[in-house]
Amino acid sequence: MLYQITIPQFTKMLNNLSLILDRAAQYASSKKIDFETLLHSRLAPDQFPLSRQLQITCDTAKFCASRLCAKEGPVHDDKERSLQEFKTRIEQTISYLGMFTESDFKGAEDRKISQPRWEGKNLTGTEYTLQHAIPNFYFHLTTAYAILRHNGVDIGKKDYLGPMPFKT
Amino acid sequence: MLYQITIPQFTKMLNNLSLILDRAAQYASSKKIDFETLLHSRLAPDQFPLSRQLQITCDTAKFCASRLCAKEGPVHDDKERSLQEFKTRIEQTISYLGMFTESDFKGAEDRKISQPRWEGKNLTGTEYTLQHAIPNFYFHLTTAYAILRHNGVDIGKKDYLGPMPFKT
Repeated sequence: MLYQITIPQFTKMLNNLSLILDRAAQYASSKKIDFETLLHSRLAPDQFPLSRQLQITCDTAKFCASRLCAKEGPVHDDKERSLQEFKTRIEQTISYLGMFTESDFKGAEDRKISQPRWEGKNLTGTEYTLQHAIPNFYFHLTTAYAILRHNGVDIGKKDYLGPMPFKT
Repeated sequence: MLYQITIPQFTKMLNNLSLILDRAAQYASSKKIDFETLLHSRLAPDQFPLSRQLQITCDTAKFCASRLCAKEGPVHDDKERSLQEFKTRIEQTISYLGMFTESDFKGAEDRKISQPRWEGKNLTGTEYTLQHAIPNFYFHLTTAYAILRHNGVDIGKKDYLGPMPFKT
């Protein structure tokens, strides 16, 4: 169950995010704005800028997979500064997620999940996924989207959700 | 599975949202701003304001439950204009979600889900939940949060996520 509700959907949303960044870059170019100006943009002075929102979105997906399956994930040094570097970061995250199979998630639901800032406390894998990883993933993804919308980038809900597997 | 990943977490996040609105109202009062000014605030001129984000957050949870279980949900006329009216709307949504049990979700995974704007097309219950309802719910909730952050309300990620069931 935890595989099904994380890996495919994180992958889909990261692909959507990569396309949204292309649209942001096109917008910046058309307005003769440096893409870095958008990366430094934020909605409140004490909120992370777009660059950090993008990094955390990727890391939330990466850590969710690695923690649930008790594997070491790749380390990223958070030094991206261009469209291409952020698209590469997203692609690397998607590739990492693609290495997991349902069988890697055996035992994940009851696995004790912790991280340094929790000071020794832990959640079960299910609690961590439903109450922490998924809400955080969408939080940073939507905040990235909101920063771009606020800056005038012409994107909409369909770009965020991506294609639906409609049947007739 | 679909019950477990929707009803308890939607309920928790709606409770968090109600507390966030209290904080917004306290902020408005301290700054001598009408709460309605926040309700009319938006991040882009062609984006829904806070009031509509709150209504859609509630409706996304309500419709997810009612559609997955093939029940008629309560109708709301979207006329809320005050803190108390929005808190009541959230409470009514939480009460509605509380009427569902796991057994109501029997058959939900393969149920054909549609809505008028899909023009006859449909998704399975699982596809709808994972790719549409959950991402939309967090989208509108996070956008509501972002509008308040942008207006200076002193809220943080912990208010969004709510309490974690930590164990030691």
